[in-house]
Amino acid sequence: MSPTAARVTAFAPGSVGNLGPGLDILGLAVAGAGDEVTAVRTSGDAIVVEDAGHPDLPADPARNTAALAAREVLRRAGVGGVGLALTVRKGLPLAGGQGGSAASAVAGAVAVNQLLGGPLDLDGLLAACLEAEATVAGRHADNVAPSLLGGIVLVRATDPPDVVRLAVPPELRVALVHPDQRLGTKESRAVLPQEVSLATALHQAAQVAAMVAALATGDYALLGRALDDRIAEPARSPLLPGFAAAKRAALAAGALGASISGSGPTAFALARGEAAARAAGTAMQAAYAEAGLSATVRIADVDRTGARVIA
Amino acid sequence: MSPTAARVTAFAPGSVGNLGPGLDILGLAVAGAGDEVTAVRTSGDAIVVEDAGHPDLPADPARNTAALAAREVLRRAGVGGVGLALTVRKGLPLAGGQGGSAASAVAGAVAVNQLLGGPLDLDGLLAACLEAEATVAGRHADNVAPSLLGGIVLVRATDPPDVVRLAVPPELRVALVHPDQRLGTKESRAVLPQEVSLATALHQAAQVAAMVAALATGDYALLGRALDDRIAEPARSPLLPGFAAAKRAALAAGALGASISGSGPTAFALARGEAAARAAGTAMQAAYAEAGLSATVRIADVDRTGARVIA
Repeated sequence: MSPTAARVTAFAPGSVGNLGPGLDILGLAVAGAGDEVTAVRTSGDAIVVEDAGHPDLPADPARNTAALAAREVLRRAGVGGVGLALTVRKGLPLAGGQGGSAASAVAGAVAVNQLLGGPLDLDGLLAACLEAEATVAGRHADNVAPSLLGGIVLVRATDPPDVVRLAVPPELRVALVHPDQRLGTKESRAVLPQEVSLATALHQAAQVAAMVAALATGDYALLGRALDDRIAEPARSPLLPGFAAAKRAALAAGALGASISGSGPTAFALARGEAAARAAGTAMQAAYAEAGLSATVRIADVDRTGARVIA
Repeated sequence: MSPTAARVTAFAPGSVGNLGPGLDILGLAVAGAGDEVTAVRTSGDAIVVEDAGHPDLPADPARNTAALAAREVLRRAGVGGVGLALTVRKGLPLAGGQGGSAASAVAGAVAVNQLLGGPLDLDGLLAACLEAEATVAGRHADNVAPSLLGGIVLVRATDPPDVVRLAVPPELRVALVHPDQRLGTKESRAVLPQEVSLATALHQAAQVAAMVAALATGDYALLGRALDDRIAEPARSPLLPGFAAAKRAALAAGALGASISGSGPTAFALARGEAAARAAGTAMQAAYAEAGLSATVRIADVDRTGARVIA
């Protein structure tokens, strides 16, 4: 355990959840943008959100993801009577499908854990973040796990969490394309089928497994062939005007594969190398423009570090 | 291409299909027992099965798996007017769930391909074997692919076949326990659900993917945790008296995991090391005995070679 501090700031990167066929079970940490949470010890015993980071985000600690994670860290550490003031700085878009709520939870948990001298290990932190995410976005760890651990993470189970950090081929790059459209997480989850055919289930399992095999051996072509989601993408694509054309454009521009990031509306493409990722991102942006939607593009490496204390 | 011969014998190992959660998509080649097929060129242009290897197996070339594979090799090689006489020697039990029909198909295909000077590569051979298997046992490659290629094989797709040979940790051993009971492939497939819940589909996908990750890194404990089939095993277990107790016994004896081999009735356990596999096999045999069933046990390594010409 590190010595306790009076003020800690932690950063957690954004992530692509639902990575292709890996609905709820496969996520990728994206280098660059992320959320920061500063935790300060206060004299009381309440958790207060001084700044939620955006006017649309709740400052109510029972609904703020950073505060929920902080509370869960205290509970798991068995620490009572600690007052905390949290300040969130959002580097990730709200409701963008870029793992923003997860990143705030992870940064909050990591900051508070450090503030306490580090009572929780990574498993404990992951469990705390999962509880926070479950309250605001559903019980799945495919954003919190990569945001905490970095890299590409497979979620074998959530109760208790059992996650596997996968190998990341060195040239893998991500294009994140965020069109100017809204799609709420709830609406996006509501269109998922409650049942799938056995054939679809087995196909989906084979694709996720093939992605894992491709990552392990650096087989970019296999990674692309396996990035084939027949459950979430077909259900959500109709809610996302422009996405289907953007995906086709990405593939035509040389992307390995493309799909919806998290529950959308951000679309992502995986590519081998920076240039290919840039070409895919530009092509996707052009496709959205043709559908009448402006879109921002970000080309990024995989974040291999995960959440970290920065001050 | 090798020079053509007048008489070739090939061997193909048995396999565990439906490896745990990998229903239809994950299979493991088992060292030791297998089927042999001798192919001889004849003056006519017909494929004749001189000996099907067992009185219960069809000698009709339209229903014999070795002959079907042989015919498919000729078709894919574009070779007409070739007469073949096939002799099958069964080293694998009939309807045992140990990949016997696949092994006969693979040995037949490999023997005939060699007889022709090797016109087909492994992809072509796999496609030929898959056609034969589809005629007699359903369109799945989780037995033919490991029998042909050796090792543990993930089937990403079957149309066209796209398979991935996975890493095999050095200490991995298999216990195959064959109880004296019958379960036809058709009956065994008939009880599979046509639809599964989304939660079950995602859990199953996560387990197959985690098995692939565990094999890639040699993480035996993860391999055991991931060997959790919630689709086929719950449906088939009621048809297989003694299986549930045998599985419990295997786990209690130190196996990493256990499930039904192929469509049964053979049960298998995976273990780390020969001694653990033997303990699991013995415990499973005792459990079947308590259920009033005699059972044969085989402890084996993974066959890492696959099918081969032996004469």
